[in-house]
Amino acid sequence: MAAFSFNKIVIFGVGLIGGSLARALRERAGATGEFVGVGRSKKSVERALEIGLIDSAVLLDDDRALELALRDADFVLIAAPVAQTEPLLRRIAPFLDPRTIVTDAGSTKNDVVSAARAALGDRVAQFVPGHPIAGRESSGPDAAIPDLYVDRNVVLCPLPENSADAVDRVAAMWLATGASVHRMTPEQHDGVFASVSHLPHVLSFALVEMILQAPDAALKFSFAAGGFRDFTRIAASSPEMWRDVCIANRTALLTEIDTYTNVLARFRQAIDTADGAALETAFERSRTARSEWQQGGAIKAADESAQ
Amino acid sequence: MAAFSFNKIVIFGVGLIGGSLARALRERAGATGEFVGVGRSKKSVERALEIGLIDSAVLLDDDRALELALRDADFVLIAAPVAQTEPLLRRIAPFLDPRTIVTDAGSTKNDVVSAARAALGDRVAQFVPGHPIAGRESSGPDAAIPDLYVDRNVVLCPLPENSADAVDRVAAMWLATGASVHRMTPEQHDGVFASVSHLPHVLSFALVEMILQAPDAALKFSFAAGGFRDFTRIAASSPEMWRDVCIANRTALLTEIDTYTNVLARFRQAIDTADGAALETAFERSRTARSEWQQGGAIKAADESAQ
Repeated sequence: MAAFSFNKIVIFGVGLIGGSLARALRERAGATGEFVGVGRSKKSVERALEIGLIDSAVLLDDDRALELALRDADFVLIAAPVAQTEPLLRRIAPFLDPRTIVTDAGSTKNDVVSAARAALGDRVAQFVPGHPIAGRESSGPDAAIPDLYVDRNVVLCPLPENSADAVDRVAAMWLATGASVHRMTPEQHDGVFASVSHLPHVLSFALVEMILQAPDAALKFSFAAGGFRDFTRIAASSPEMWRDVCIANRTALLTEIDTYTNVLARFRQAIDTADGAALETAFERSRTARSEWQQGGAIKAADESAQ
Repeated sequence: MAAFSFNKIVIFGVGLIGGSLARALRERAGATGEFVGVGRSKKSVERALEIGLIDSAVLLDDDRALELALRDADFVLIAAPVAQTEPLLRRIAPFLDPRTIVTDAGSTKNDVVSAARAALGDRVAQFVPGHPIAGRESSGPDAAIPDLYVDRNVVLCPLPENSADAVDRVAAMWLATGASVHRMTPEQHDGVFASVSHLPHVLSFALVEMILQAPDAALKFSFAAGGFRDFTRIAASSPEMWRDVCIANRTALLTEIDTYTNVLARFRQAIDTADGAALETAFERSRTARSEWQQGGAIKAADESAQ
């Protein structure tokens, strides 16, 4: 794990994501710098202070405290639902030190980049967009753990305006938590996560919604078993967060929904015509790919010539 | 647990399902009767004999052994993929004792009932259709465990021709394994499981299939995380079994696919128009229902007046 040192980091949103970064840097990377937590409500930042995630707590609407917090900060991390990125960056902008590097932990990137350009204008070079791929079902300061990012992926989507040094410093911060760091364009990022994360959430919510609307919903739920349990675990995710993600990444997500609907229509056709061979071939291909993925093997595209 | 005694039970397919029934009856219910296992290949029945699941092993194509096995049998259990139900019943028919009760463990019921009528003709009264809702990712004789059915549901779909006594005796057999026994019509059964089991399998296979066909499939799989893992666990299920289930239950499954496609189209519309309120309301409803289901609470239909 790379060494990582700094004087001050200001974390907007000291919950699972922001709090776990603080704990990782302190407990795993031995960082000795100052951790400042900023929140919209007293409750969350005071709890974060109480359990030692941060050294000082600031309320977002306190101009004077925010100005002091941001003065001489090395890093700012925005760890809040993506829809809050632009208002938070607008709030930060007046007090932003020219040497501070700002990054975020949002699940979507195209919209975050637009938000950063709108809020920071010609200081957007200070903003390095990022996305740690980590989560747990619990949330809030008490859910923060030092090992959340160990062996996880962090995707950075550097802007053309970012200096190599700024990007490297954000990468070094995540490497110090035990994560692997990858770089993609915002478009690549949003396409990949629309496919492997956002779409499955929508599909899972849709299954529960469909069953709820059946006249015999109670009977159906009462016979649901293990397959249903795993398939719908993500349908118990935060409605607010997923509402925001769906809207923030709607361009890529609509493409994925349409592609998926076509695959489902193809399966429907094979079922309707009792084309067992087509179903078995597709199911076998899925099983093999899923098993290789589970074992950490490389998975090749069905049509590599299309690469 | 109810007591359960018999002289002889003949199990066609001594794998996870059939083998676990044998172990449950012997080890949990103290049954002392004879267990005969029938299989298509030597390997599986001999292994079942070796590890003590059964007292004797018979090959399906051995006329004389099959005749002897079925003579004076109290029960026959068909525990094989549903597409084999009709050929197996046709194979059994010539040797079927008039006092033997035949039941099955198939995941679909309308097609099994048709198969039984076709194969058994006016002796169909001896056939009580059943479906134990239990499974594990492993299969074969070695996967059999005595507790597979404890606290699980078993659905019986009695025929108008069945005597009350025949149905009660099959129910008693499953109760003795620790399961709860429920009764439904074949139509109800197939609708319920199309919704909570067969459709999720198709949806999960379809997601992996969709990603596999993307030109950047390898990149996408490499960033798939926990949500994807749970959502696609069932896409590692047996292609043969799910091919058969999809075709056997295609009427109910096509209805579910169409209903689901409509719900997904509604979600798509809300995403396209950035209708956050509609998305949040639906996601919240799903999360609440999913959480109540997980906690074992009763779930009500969205529109109870439609009941």
